[in-house]
Amino acid sequence: MSNEAALSRIRIVLSHTSHPGNIGAAARAMKTMGLSRLHLVNPRYFPHPDALALATGAADILESAMVSESLDAALAGTVMAVAVTARPRNLSHEVVSCRQACKRLMGETARGEVALVFGTERAGLTVAEVGKCGLIATIPTDEAYASLNLAQAVQVFAYELRMTIAAPRDAVPDAAVNLAAHDDIERFYEHLEQVLYETEFLNPAQPNRLMQRLRRLFARARLEKDEVSILRGILSAMQDKRQ
Amino acid sequence: MSNEAALSRIRIVLSHTSHPGNIGAAARAMKTMGLSRLHLVNPRYFPHPDALALATGAADILESAMVSESLDAALAGTVMAVAVTARPRNLSHEVVSCRQACKRLMGETARGEVALVFGTERAGLTVAEVGKCGLIATIPTDEAYASLNLAQAVQVFAYELRMTIAAPRDAVPDAAVNLAAHDDIERFYEHLEQVLYETEFLNPAQPNRLMQRLRRLFARARLEKDEVSILRGILSAMQDKRQ
Repeated sequence: MSNEAALSRIRIVLSHTSHPGNIGAAARAMKTMGLSRLHLVNPRYFPHPDALALATGAADILESAMVSESLDAALAGTVMAVAVTARPRNLSHEVVSCRQACKRLMGETARGEVALVFGTERAGLTVAEVGKCGLIATIPTDEAYASLNLAQAVQVFAYELRMTIAAPRDAVPDAAVNLAAHDDIERFYEHLEQVLYETEFLNPAQPNRLMQRLRRLFARARLEKDEVSILRGILSAMQDKRQ
Repeated sequence: MSNEAALSRIRIVLSHTSHPGNIGAAARAMKTMGLSRLHLVNPRYFPHPDALALATGAADILESAMVSESLDAALAGTVMAVAVTARPRNLSHEVVSCRQACKRLMGETARGEVALVFGTERAGLTVAEVGKCGLIATIPTDEAYASLNLAQAVQVFAYELRMTIAAPRDAVPDAAVNLAAHDDIERFYEHLEQVLYETEFLNPAQPNRLMQRLRRLFARARLEKDEVSILRGILSAMQDKRQ
């Protein structure tokens, strides 16, 4: 299954959301990470202009959102549901971090549809709602202030879901960087050393020490072809100016 | 150093923010993850009731926020600054994922203060602003819709910073290296630009293009204190020699 197909099997369920702006912001957060399936359980106001305003370019997700009367309806047909809680108040279920939960959810998409369930802004999920899920996930927060906004929590989970597929490419590769060849770099060092002699900056008694330091600096940068040309151009311009 | 001490060395810099509500939401996002140091560069409106409303329990972060006229002022004294961009538009600087950037930033806190820099809601950071940072970080997003809200982006980074301390610490810095501070590096660039003018190497019609390339080169190298001294010594010697 492709990554897109896996993401399309993930439902984001918002239960009894009070502020429609949060629904819109959650839709936007989902869309940035390639999630599209929003389920709303008894939202206080929906549809609502605030939801649309906060969704920005993600109005399509609001339009296709499923609205239901009960969490059971929203979870119908899923093979795994994860309850998101700010601070686990009971030990009724296994509690894992957001990151671990997202890895498991993505794995489960191979079997079928899965859901991430978020409660109300003020009180989170009820004990009964958590009981309908198979796992509790929590976002690590500062102990003194754990009050994530609902849409922010959705954003963090959506991000972690996407990172499970981005992981192998976690390191954004250098796009076609054209590194300078060894010989070109050596000629640059010779040129630099020459100019340093001419300016009398190089101590003739200890020329190698300074050049070693400069080599170390430029080696860390891993000079590109163009950069060697620029640096040598600068050195030449300095020499010309003096003559 | 304790984790709390490490987090207290991280500045969240918001440059030219248009909507004060985003500043408030960013403050809340920071506080949930234990970050406290907010720096605002030329915010359009601040203080503002919308910022306070969105901050919820994080008004203390708004109250202690530093407001400055320039990015240089916000970065003064930092040993590392990371530019956050939606999609890397040019190849200036090394580009890493949010996760990698946060590991590096946390590692660097052993050496001193660090900064994460966010641009405007609409256009992000300018090329000049990115040029003042040593690394570019990006949040992996869906290709079709990469439009994270500013506060959402702050939330994801704040979350990843916190996760670096929740997970075993794998970003151990090279303790012996004494990196140059932002201010010293900026003075080196000014000096370099001056010498390039004097040698007429810099095209006065397009001075920024060349300086951007050189900034990118030296940013990759991550200049040490001693190296900045050496480079400035070379520049001074070249100036003396011509006189």
